Amino acid sequence: MNKGNLYVVSAPSGCGKGTILEEVLKNNTNLFFSVSATTRDPREGEAEGVNYYYISEEEFKSEIENGGMLEYAQYCGNLYGTPKKRVLEKLDKGIDVILEIETIGAMKVKKAMNEAILIFILPPSVAELRRRLNKRGTESQEVIDKRVNEAVEEIKRAVNYDYVMINDELENAIKDFEAILKASKLTIENNKNMIGKVLENA
Amino acid sequence: MNKGNLYVVSAPSGCGKGTILEEVLKNNTNLFFSVSATTRDPREGEAEGVNYYYISEEEFKSEIENGGMLEYAQYCGNLYGTPKKRVLEKLDKGIDVILEIETIGAMKVKKAMNEAILIFILPPSVAELRRRLNKRGTESQEVIDKRVNEAVEEIKRAVNYDYVMINDELENAIKDFEAILKASKLTIENNKNMIGKVLENA
Repeated sequence: MNKGNLYVVSAPSGCGKGTILEEVLKNNTNLFFSVSATTRDPREGEAEGVNYYYISEEEFKSEIENGGMLEYAQYCGNLYGTPKKRVLEKLDKGIDVILEIETIGAMKVKKAMNEAILIFILPPSVAELRRRLNKRGTESQEVIDKRVNEAVEEIKRAVNYDYVMINDELENAIKDFEAILKASKLTIENNKNMIGKVLENA
Repeated sequence: MNKGNLYVVSAPSGCGKGTILEEVLKNNTNLFFSVSATTRDPREGEAEGVNYYYISEEEFKSEIENGGMLEYAQYCGNLYGTPKKRVLEKLDKGIDVILEIETIGAMKVKKAMNEAILIFILPPSVAELRRRLNKRGTESQEVIDKRVNEAVEEIKRAVNYDYVMINDELENAIKDFEAILKASKLTIENNKNMIGKVLENA
């Protein structure tokens, strides 16, 4: 049996990656979404084990020491990380796993697991990203400025990804994302044993 | 403007690549199908400039000498080749080009143009391929045996391709093929300038 693919998805806040992933996970039931752990407080509407596992800084640091984090990073003063065990178990069972993490963490995963497939979701433009964040109306201007600056830094790191896609129209973005998933299952790296099977008893 | 992608498609005779490509070309109007030149005689139902450009051995060899063939190969006693000029012109205009060629030619194209994307269409099994060739009923058992042996050799070379897909159900095969086309337009290699555009005026 083939191992599952590991997809690492990054996008600046406000690029709609949550909505895209929600739809993609609905349509593709062989995908496992890896929930990250974080030390930040839950936002309104977020739930334990759905958006994040909310743990204390002490717990987080103890996980790091025990080698239990596939990657972790500090962002806006909080720690975010990927609990390793569940991810590796799913991949071994042939289940594809999606990690939704920021760019520094993504680079760490790629370094640890070169077969990981990195997907970056871009906004149509930085101006449009700012407009979307303003429209959301949940954060102060200062926080929005900070997010936009962070976004610019993250977008610059998109050159290290395998795929980049723009979320302009949601429907198209979902199609793009699903094409990447489907095509990446058809690469030769994933299918060397398929050739052997076709040739069996030839 | 980005250059077009060059897709090289190979499949043993009887794998349905003709039908797949016909549908894909109907659905994707930005794709240019590169018609090969050959010294073999037209089969019943084939037409000049549609299936092949049918040229004499003398003409073919003169093209080779003038550097006019992107690749060429001998197969079952006949010469097959890809006229270079039209392919490069389309790519320069940002149009994606599909070459349908056999495996030796495909390897030559990959060597000459490393950015080419090689797709191999597999039959579900060699036994099923033989069944399909027999069903077609247009060739003698001797010719079918020869084709099956050639197919086995070609399938062994599929490990050198970027993507491999099985044509079991036509509808699924078309979706697989189109996912490869779409995803390959989203690779970072094709989109470094997209990141610059998103960051403009940031």
